[in-house]
Amino acid sequence: MRINLIGFGVIGKGFARALVRKRTWLREKYGFQPEVVSISDVTGTVVSEGGLDLEKTLSSVERTGRVIDCPGAEEMTGLEAIREVDADLVVEVTPTNVDTGEPGLSHMLTAMEAGKHVVTSNKGPLALEFKRLTETAKKNGVHLKFEASAGGAMPLINLANEILSGDEILSIKGILNGTTNYILTRMTKEGTGFESTLREAQELGIAETDPTYDISGSDTAAKLVILTNAIMGKNTTYRDVKIEGINRITPEAIALAKEDGYVIKLVGTVENGELEVAPKLVPMNHPLNVDGTLNVATFQTDLAGEITIVGTGAGAMETNSAILSDILSIFRNSRG
Amino acid sequence: MRINLIGFGVIGKGFARALVRKRTWLREKYGFQPEVVSISDVTGTVVSEGGLDLEKTLSSVERTGRVIDCPGAEEMTGLEAIREVDADLVVEVTPTNVDTGEPGLSHMLTAMEAGKHVVTSNKGPLALEFKRLTETAKKNGVHLKFEASAGGAMPLINLANEILSGDEILSIKGILNGTTNYILTRMTKEGTGFESTLREAQELGIAETDPTYDISGSDTAAKLVILTNAIMGKNTTYRDVKIEGINRITPEAIALAKEDGYVIKLVGTVENGELEVAPKLVPMNHPLNVDGTLNVATFQTDLAGEITIVGTGAGAMETNSAILSDILSIFRNSRG
Repeated sequence: MRINLIGFGVIGKGFARALVRKRTWLREKYGFQPEVVSISDVTGTVVSEGGLDLEKTLSSVERTGRVIDCPGAEEMTGLEAIREVDADLVVEVTPTNVDTGEPGLSHMLTAMEAGKHVVTSNKGPLALEFKRLTETAKKNGVHLKFEASAGGAMPLINLANEILSGDEILSIKGILNGTTNYILTRMTKEGTGFESTLREAQELGIAETDPTYDISGSDTAAKLVILTNAIMGKNTTYRDVKIEGINRITPEAIALAKEDGYVIKLVGTVENGELEVAPKLVPMNHPLNVDGTLNVATFQTDLAGEITIVGTGAGAMETNSAILSDILSIFRNSRG
Repeated sequence: MRINLIGFGVIGKGFARALVRKRTWLREKYGFQPEVVSISDVTGTVVSEGGLDLEKTLSSVERTGRVIDCPGAEEMTGLEAIREVDADLVVEVTPTNVDTGEPGLSHMLTAMEAGKHVVTSNKGPLALEFKRLTETAKKNGVHLKFEASAGGAMPLINLANEILSGDEILSIKGILNGTTNYILTRMTKEGTGFESTLREAQELGIAETDPTYDISGSDTAAKLVILTNAIMGKNTTYRDVKIEGINRITPEAIALAKEDGYVIKLVGTVENGELEVAPKLVPMNHPLNVDGTLNVATFQTDLAGEITIVGTGAGAMETNSAILSDILSIFRNSRG
């Protein structure tokens, strides 16, 4: 399998590292020998029709931070690489944008129209143009897989659609953002206020310098839209979600909840066709009550009752667990 | 797809009920129209080459408790039904036996040798003769699926093997028995002793009249063996597990653990090739700390870190979620 890798930040580099680390294992266990034939970032593209030496590319980009500085790199955009460098599959891991979906949206559409499968962790295009993307995949007879876009290492979409296939998923409730869960966990344990806890999280590198996207609930909402569409077969967008963030939660509210055996968590919920992101009371002994940066989701099903899955919501290796599993599933499908 | 149903107790009846309830959904969603052509219990077999009326069979067995009392039933054993009644797949849900594996073992081997797929919830045969069973499946070109045998509704095996396919599973830790988890949860909350809490659980119907199989750790051990073999590709048996039950746990030990932020849980662990079932200290805020009759398992993986799944460990409908998903996976594979 020949791969165009589009995006070479934390996730893209993690993908290259995972392939290096697991090269032998993948060959021995699955007979799977992927070759990355191009790597693009916003500065340019490096191409090798026979497959790039990923260790060399990684170490050369680590020195300067830019793909264009690699030996032999060209001023070719990601879009051009998708059009011009022959491959079977595009891994799209450019920075996400929930307003326009670009540049990921164009990358994915162009790839699929060129008959290439797409595996992505990029939330924006999926939260905005889910139907257009899945229909383009169908029309061109290619796979579009995006497990990594919602819930990091938690394999929620494949779990619901492939493994719990005998069950109808009636509702989904999830803590889908590690930053807000970390802040709420600290506020609960330490009795501290929102602003000071946010600053602490920023100092630790857990919250971004501009934390709006996380604490407003937008990130959770984008993920909820993807889960709803992929698992429940809906066609919702980011704009359908009722969103409330965590910035107005007080230590007093948390203390009151605690007295009654509850914790306050930022929960994304889809139930009876309604999508909502808001702080919710969660019983302390419920599986949804997970601490720190952990993510969690509970499916209410018709046969299995409640199934909950807990995992790391972010991180380069964790996200690449989902990307690699998606690629392997395409590999196995195309061989079968 | 034509099915021989072998075993018509709680799980077998639940299977028939699930098919009745989901008949339309299965046809509309997957184009799947299974027919149960025979149902056997220890008293006899009822056969209909064109597919049994499951509602009628259920209501007639509910009156007398025996398949032999159904109109048209014959004194045919399950083994004979597998041999003589034409079908594609056998659902084997007879009572489990971890000493001999019978009658499940013979049912499964005979079915596969006759070219029939097998889906089962029966732990005993798998915990004793895993290799023989999987090799028989391979030799005869049929599927043997047993998600329901370990962890009830939690889809552990399919999750690890199909969804986390890019990850290596380094260790498994699980609370795989609802009865013992219920007893330990009550002892922790109420400060009660083992014997009185066991009696309470028996009065509530959560513990069996003879609770030895659960509280000794044997049930957990059988499930651990199945998970180890199926997920890690090993060939262990029940006899390889170091087992300690929960009967010697005191309220004092639980209180001491609590002071340090831990709970005591009966945990099955496979790590570095060693299988163990024993009471363990679990940090209170760890996802493994689930209450009541819930089951849970944590996979330590090389890419995704820790992935935890929580679900109902037992129950007729919950177990049939796993059975139905296994059947659907065979259905989709055989169509593809």
